[in-house]
Amino acid sequence: MTNVDINCDLGEGYGPYRMGDDAALMKVITSANIACGFHAGDPSIMVKTVQLAIDNGVDIGAHVGFADIQGFGRRPLNLDASELRAMTWYQLGALQGIARAAGKKVQHVTFHGALGNMCFAEAELAATLMAAIKAFDASLTIIAPPMTEMETAALNAGLPVKRVVFADRAYDDHGLLVSRKLPGAVIHESEAVIERVVRMFQDSAITSQSGKRMPVSIDSVLVHGDTPGAADLAALVRARLQQSGLQVRPISQHRN
Amino acid sequence: MTNVDINCDLGEGYGPYRMGDDAALMKVITSANIACGFHAGDPSIMVKTVQLAIDNGVDIGAHVGFADIQGFGRRPLNLDASELRAMTWYQLGALQGIARAAGKKVQHVTFHGALGNMCFAEAELAATLMAAIKAFDASLTIIAPPMTEMETAALNAGLPVKRVVFADRAYDDHGLLVSRKLPGAVIHESEAVIERVVRMFQDSAITSQSGKRMPVSIDSVLVHGDTPGAADLAALVRARLQQSGLQVRPISQHRN
Amino acid sequence: MTNVDINCDLGEGYGPYRMGDDAALMKVITSANIACGFHAGDPSIMVKTVQLAIDNGVDIGAHVGFADIQGFGRRPLNLDASELRAMTWYQLGALQGIARAAGKKVQHVTFHGALGNMCFAEAELAATLMAAIKAFDASLTIIAPPMTEMETAALNAGLPVKRVVFADRAYDDHGLLVSRKLPGAVIHESEAVIERVVRMFQDSAITSQSGKRMPVSIDSVLVHGDTPGAADLAALVRARLQQSGLQVRPISQHRN
Amino acid sequence: MTNVDINCDLGEGYGPYRMGDDAALMKVITSANIACGFHAGDPSIMVKTVQLAIDNGVDIGAHVGFADIQGFGRRPLNLDASELRAMTWYQLGALQGIARAAGKKVQHVTFHGALGNMCFAEAELAATLMAAIKAFDASLTIIAPPMTEMETAALNAGLPVKRVVFADRAYDDHGLLVSRKLPGAVIHESEAVIERVVRMFQDSAITSQSGKRMPVSIDSVLVHGDTPGAADLAALVRARLQQSGLQVRPISQHRN
Repeated sequence: MTNVDINCDLGEGYGPYRMGDDAALMKVITSANIACGFHAGDPSIMVKTVQLAIDNGVDIGAHVGFADIQGFGRRPLNLDASELRAMTWYQLGALQGIARAAGKKVQHVTFHGALGNMCFAEAELAATLMAAIKAFDASLTIIAPPMTEMETAALNAGLPVKRVVFADRAYDDHGLLVSRKLPGAVIHESEAVIERVVRMFQDSAITSQSGKRMPVSIDSVLVHGDTPGAADLAALVRARLQQSGLQVRPISQHRN
Repeated sequence: MTNVDINCDLGEGYGPYRMGDDAALMKVITSANIACGFHAGDPSIMVKTVQLAIDNGVDIGAHVGFADIQGFGRRPLNLDASELRAMTWYQLGALQGIARAAGKKVQHVTFHGALGNMCFAEAELAATLMAAIKAFDASLTIIAPPMTEMETAALNAGLPVKRVVFADRAYDDHGLLVSRKLPGAVIHESEAVIERVVRMFQDSAITSQSGKRMPVSIDSVLVHGDTPGAADLAALVRARLQQSGLQVRPISQHRN
Repeated sequence: MTNVDINCDLGEGYGPYRMGDDAALMKVITSANIACGFHAGDPSIMVKTVQLAIDNGVDIGAHVGFADIQGFGRRPLNLDASELRAMTWYQLGALQGIARAAGKKVQHVTFHGALGNMCFAEAELAATLMAAIKAFDASLTIIAPPMTEMETAALNAGLPVKRVVFADRAYDDHGLLVSRKLPGAVIHESEAVIERVVRMFQDSAITSQSGKRMPVSIDSVLVHGDTPGAADLAALVRARLQQSGLQVRPISQHRN
Repeated sequence: MTNVDINCDLGEGYGPYRMGDDAALMKVITSANIACGFHAGDPSIMVKTVQLAIDNGVDIGAHVGFADIQGFGRRPLNLDASELRAMTWYQLGALQGIARAAGKKVQHVTFHGALGNMCFAEAELAATLMAAIKAFDASLTIIAPPMTEMETAALNAGLPVKRVVFADRAYDDHGLLVSRKLPGAVIHESEAVIERVVRMFQDSAITSQSGKRMPVSIDSVLVHGDTPGAADLAALVRARLQQSGLQVRPISQHRN
């Protein structure tokens, strides 16, 4: 039976502020990408989010981003390799410190916002980040979109790689996300999102907006947590994946 | 031969700013208390400071403080136990992440500024912090001034404890530091500082301003890094300790 | 006809985060206490909030607080007089800069969270803050709760003072707020809140939890903006005040 | 007699950190570009810097930069026009609030670091910033390097413009600064710096690295404050300018 991971960006609050219904989402997802205090998150929120993950049997992952609470990590910063390494180690370590105090371990890594986009598109930056992760812990799984520089760099570094698709985003013929500025970039209708996700896993392929079919290995689907009804939609996605005969479980429990 | 550790607070810069001559100090000390990005330090500075410590065979320790760059962690904050735990795990983890990427391990913990003073004086806060450290890593050495709540809490928690004295600060009859607001609180004359440090280690005792002798076990001396000539004074302290037949080496190399 | 001002703390977001429904609240209040970027608010949010106030004929006021986005200005900080003055001038100036660019002027000042509580209770701190405000602009109105050190200090400084009551908070026999930790401190039932506000204005008196009646001059009522249904409740308060023959208008339009 | 202004970036500390010897520099310069708390400076430092300027008869100017203490405002940020306006008004207002409390007024504006470079080179951004300044206070003087988009935008906006040259930087044939990455970009030898500055004012021209002479109106020279010996060099520049028959005085005292 094919294994399917459902992952989501969580712990995206700061101080008195919150985004998304983390408690509800944790009940339906299998992997949490937890903000590490740079683009969002603070130590107290991270502790609560890690505990929620543990309580729900959800894998703990680090969602690494630029140090920019005000801009939510969405503003590109031009940092040199030594700065990129330092901020990656710091964030991985901080989350690992919190997980360790709770008797657990960080399992995977993803990148947030502007840093994520740069890691998909820029080979040198992606290689720098993957080398940094490897120096920290060579057993960490990289959850990367297929056909990106991030996937290539992770494979080159010899890190474990799992491929993720986006539940509600259209793809172009290169397997990249259609820009949010273009029509049809985001799929809003629930049933369309659900069918699309199930089809991608069943076909082991991404189909672009123009209809081009691109066969890829897929292990995980990213659902968004910061839109109204996000937890309900994620629950529907999960139910349909299970009804379709797919095994929904965290990546740490996937058999390779 | 008696083992003596010389420790110093380092990595206390931020962005373009620096305090103290870390490169010179690293050559003469044996343990570095490295700021973890909350009261001072940023990821890039931490990486450089950890590398300097490694290059000089200096033990890597976490200097944990309140999140307050502007106030340099010197302003008391009234945080609850869960916040104290979270910020301790976060900072320990962040430094451990950087040390791990360099193939090393955080060896000890001290607390900075207002948090340090509170940890010396407040039993409940000290117990909370020690429990947090233990949950993170029960093998971490606590470097505590003798006769403080911090020492008591560390012993109660079953953590390894080493006792530290201050090179240039006068003590009162309770073994506590004389307030900086009172005359004679800080010893400025180099020769007086040096003689005092040697005597404390040779006597295994602290002598108060009034002349009261308090026998204590002493493992380490704290030298300040942020005053002019700090590295030179530390070098003189080290030389005199060695001439006096004491063995200057990091705590990780002390035989118990 | 008695003039009544309805004021509310607004602009309490940061970066991607928001608190309260500012657009709805602006339609029913008459004075906005706008966060100045220290405990909440950022320049872009402040510009939008000032524009909303202008569009709705609402007075622009500065809500001055401690520099602590993560703690939302609710953590007491022990600053000296020169620091208190500097942060007050900075925040007043920043909001005035934004108001001025929109062709308007800051009309009043209140203090947020921990700084507000300290200003109610500590005579010296209140005097420092009032002297700072006077040096910046002696025509700024201080909106203070009656029977507090803040009111006394503002009067002593010769600043224009308006008295504010809290819509949903119980008072003790000294005219101070009952601590939130005690039962009955917060009045939750809408009709009880509304009747209470109308009665305070009609009687020109605050009645304590124990029934003690304390006659005071009242010019304004503070409604909270960060609770669900806040704008609806504020609208009901406003309607009932008007039905009771009171004139709801900004303090800048009150005739003295 | 030709008027000459000597300006310098000051108040560039944060919390416990300082850059440059502001007290010594204030004795020899005539205009201070004061950091407004975004790329450097905090309210307390700003108050001290404004007071130093007043004590020395130095013009108070706003040095506006990106919100980035860690990166010292040297990292480009891609902000939209509304964000640029908001941050400009906020910073201008904050400094004006502090100046006003001291009975003075902000006289001029310059931009720091990455924002400054963008303002020299990008016409649209420069126009946005100049429109923002004009909305705040149309009497503020813009101190701009000649032949830049900043100068053009300030003139187009109808703002008062004064031209500044850099004491220790080489120019290319377009009147722009030679990149620091190229040889000869920075002139290190004191006598060379001094002769160059005097010649530029006497000739009313900038001479490029290749020898091309570009006639321009020059009102001010920027000296750096963050290099060792900066105050001594500035004093020598001032003395030589005066010996050469030029009138060294703040821009607010220049007759047009």
